[in-house]
Amino acid sequence: MSVFNHTPASRESGTEARLNKVLIANRGEIALRIVRACAEMGIQSVAMYTEADRYALHVKRADEAHSLGEDPLAGYLDPARIVSLAVQTGCDAIHPGYGFLSENAEFARLAEQAGIVFIGPASAVIERMGDKTAARDSMRAAGVPVTPGSDGNLTDVEQALALAEEVGYPVMIKATSGGGGRGIRRCDDAGELRQQYPRVISEASKAFGSADVFLEKCIVNPRHIEVQILADGQGNVIHLYERDCSIQRRNQKLIEIAPSPQLTPEQRDYVGSLAVKAAMAVGYENAGTVEFLLTGNQVYFMEMNTRVQVEHTITEEITGVDIVREQLRIAAGNALTFRQQDIRYQGFALQFRINAEDPQNDFFPSFGRISHYYAPGGPGVRVDTAIYTGYDIPPYFDSMCLKLVVWALSWDEVIARGQRALDDMRLQGVTTTAPYYQQILAHPQFRAGQFNTSFVSDNPQLLSYSNKRQPRDIALAIAAAIAGHAGL
Amino acid sequence: MSVFNHTPASRESGTEARLNKVLIANRGEIALRIVRACAEMGIQSVAMYTEADRYALHVKRADEAHSLGEDPLAGYLDPARIVSLAVQTGCDAIHPGYGFLSENAEFARLAEQAGIVFIGPASAVIERMGDKTAARDSMRAAGVPVTPGSDGNLTDVEQALALAEEVGYPVMIKATSGGGGRGIRRCDDAGELRQQYPRVISEASKAFGSADVFLEKCIVNPRHIEVQILADGQGNVIHLYERDCSIQRRNQKLIEIAPSPQLTPEQRDYVGSLAVKAAMAVGYENAGTVEFLLTGNQVYFMEMNTRVQVEHTITEEITGVDIVREQLRIAAGNALTFRQQDIRYQGFALQFRINAEDPQNDFFPSFGRISHYYAPGGPGVRVDTAIYTGYDIPPYFDSMCLKLVVWALSWDEVIARGQRALDDMRLQGVTTTAPYYQQILAHPQFRAGQFNTSFVSDNPQLLSYSNKRQPRDIALAIAAAIAGHAGL
Repeated sequence: MSVFNHTPASRESGTEARLNKVLIANRGEIALRIVRACAEMGIQSVAMYTEADRYALHVKRADEAHSLGEDPLAGYLDPARIVSLAVQTGCDAIHPGYGFLSENAEFARLAEQAGIVFIGPASAVIERMGDKTAARDSMRAAGVPVTPGSDGNLTDVEQALALAEEVGYPVMIKATSGGGGRGIRRCDDAGELRQQYPRVISEASKAFGSADVFLEKCIVNPRHIEVQILADGQGNVIHLYERDCSIQRRNQKLIEIAPSPQLTPEQRDYVGSLAVKAAMAVGYENAGTVEFLLTGNQVYFMEMNTRVQVEHTITEEITGVDIVREQLRIAAGNALTFRQQDIRYQGFALQFRINAEDPQNDFFPSFGRISHYYAPGGPGVRVDTAIYTGYDIPPYFDSMCLKLVVWALSWDEVIARGQRALDDMRLQGVTTTAPYYQQILAHPQFRAGQFNTSFVSDNPQLLSYSNKRQPRDIALAIAAAIAGHAGL
Repeated sequence: MSVFNHTPASRESGTEARLNKVLIANRGEIALRIVRACAEMGIQSVAMYTEADRYALHVKRADEAHSLGEDPLAGYLDPARIVSLAVQTGCDAIHPGYGFLSENAEFARLAEQAGIVFIGPASAVIERMGDKTAARDSMRAAGVPVTPGSDGNLTDVEQALALAEEVGYPVMIKATSGGGGRGIRRCDDAGELRQQYPRVISEASKAFGSADVFLEKCIVNPRHIEVQILADGQGNVIHLYERDCSIQRRNQKLIEIAPSPQLTPEQRDYVGSLAVKAAMAVGYENAGTVEFLLTGNQVYFMEMNTRVQVEHTITEEITGVDIVREQLRIAAGNALTFRQQDIRYQGFALQFRINAEDPQNDFFPSFGRISHYYAPGGPGVRVDTAIYTGYDIPPYFDSMCLKLVVWALSWDEVIARGQRALDDMRLQGVTTTAPYYQQILAHPQFRAGQFNTSFVSDNPQLLSYSNKRQPRDIALAIAAAIAGHAGL
């Protein structure tokens, strides 16, 4: 259809290779996200679940669903069992989602050996980027700036102390196999370094099965900027611009923003090109994210996430590119249909991670039954969630229960839309982070688009808010209850 | 903030005029749409309702709500009472939405006289465009092509017969004050014309309070193409491209599409420029829609809708422009911040009007209580609705209960997304048009992007479908019910 001159012609050509059946090795909203992408592409989806998830939405909506047994977690973390399920159910690919086994090189290798396409980069690439010191080595070799620090793993605390003197305090001791913000300690002087060093080793051994640690100069109050990339099996790599994930607490992202409101166009182009260079250097394939720390005009490679990220949504909103669809296309062997110059972005998107946690009680998890859920809607509002009214949030998994994504044409408008959509949503039965996000949106520094990773800890006063509902809301809830309606 | 180089600078300048308080003279999803826009712009919203709507969502979500009495309809149709309510509540403007009094020139005039801004064009413009023969005269004078037919109103059936001979059968007899697809009859020969002529006069008198009728040559199986325009009070007029509303039944739109998959770029530019010319010719202000009929390469002006339309959503999706926000900006006296060259469109959007009707029973209304509603979500899905689980759809108003809007980068992808989103949605307790839309999406002609206004009547076989749910869906619903969960 030649009139579709704004669509890459090859997308209409009907010559696409396609996966037939995909095992979704995950749960919750990301599993549902993948079920939906499969449905739109005519690919059969196979869900898996542990018994705690028997009534989960990903189970209901996939074309097939298979139990992994009683233990709530074990099944989701068992590479051999999952690959074997993929083989048994006739799947030609596995989508690992994020978390769980998504960055487990052994899992990818088992899939490769079984002749199942692992939707992600090759196991050797996962392994290299998962090893933080090997990743740093690769980046240095490719000319991507890394933070000053150890060349490889540390041999002992004395080496760490000498290196710290050289690069200057504060420094970070990090688990080489770490990720997701865990296995990291900051040391402001030699005394702290001596104290923290064995603790990180101990934590790393327990959490990641490796005692390897390395040292980096601590970039104080940086901005967290990450670049989404797409790479096909033919050597084409493009970026989809950046996300600003500086609004985080203890290395856990809370609100993500695309594009960053605090980059100059030159900085934007620079980090984009660095990310492409990084991906090319390691022979990357499929979707991935290169994370950077920015301070002033300095940019440092932090790590590469070799999987789809929780916050891929906001990149989709500003570019129009369906990242999960692209993952499935690339995994089937197709080339990218976009060149870098085809990728434009428009407006701003915010993602709020609505977690079942009580911010006023040190973000303590608040599991339980969702007694009432009303999805926000209207223009510029997207919701990715697997919850529903009556759903019991199981205590075994992470506490994120909903991703609320808003888009608008300008920064001021996207903040206003975020406020409106948070206000629009009803999620009762558990305590959530939503009111805390309203506090952040009202803060002058946030509204000015100026913040770094210390924003949350620098503003403890934002935790002082009232949980009371609006009087009018209460009056209406009572009126509605009298009339026999659910309270809205 | 200079880094926002993609945002018109004046949107960030803080020099915008703003309305303070707006009375929303409507109900249902469009009232909620306006409440949300007001909330995002810091404008107080005032809802009004008749007692049948006491528990409606627009009532719950507005800043204030006022009853218009027991009669379900009278209050919504009482211009004097509504203007007086706006004055009493200290509103500086009235948003009429669509339907009801939105194109009632007397209502706009009363507001003007009371010093209340009517969010729409001047009452004189509403009057002129509401009078179909006056509108045709204005268009002819401006050089916008109109269908061959009478120069003004018909004087008698003999004049109609003579004119019909001249332009050729079939012809349409139309009520001059008609709208919304009513007061229109097609006549294929002189016999039919003699028969229908008095009927249209009678219908027009009853429905629109005017016996004036006119004659147009009937354009057989045209495509219905309409162009969204925005005009400010400083004489700036732009268009936001077109919508294809050819998928309609008895002149009621069912699925709307933006942009049209069946226009060449030249046709697109041409209809866009005609719409701007039409709006300029009548001194139009605020948002409006110019409707055209296309056949082959011929384009004819049909009518202008001097209000926001049900299907404005899909234009928002492809252009990123928030039309209701622009309405409120323009009404406050601001100039447009977009020039024509700033308006680009990307991808395709579809809107499904999910009506509480039974397509298999001649689209008979199916009012009642929504026993279960689950909002579809994920990428490219937008929902505008005022329903919720437990809501009783009152029998007094129109049957549309939800607008499901999907966006994707290409035509094939937007169809697949529509199929997925319709499948995702749960709306139980009433019969809806959703399964019928699945039939349309599966039709080869629709998928090829080739259809005209006779598509629905030409394909009665699409009404033959099974209402049975998927076996797996039933099994899961039973399992969920046993477990005490709501069926999903």
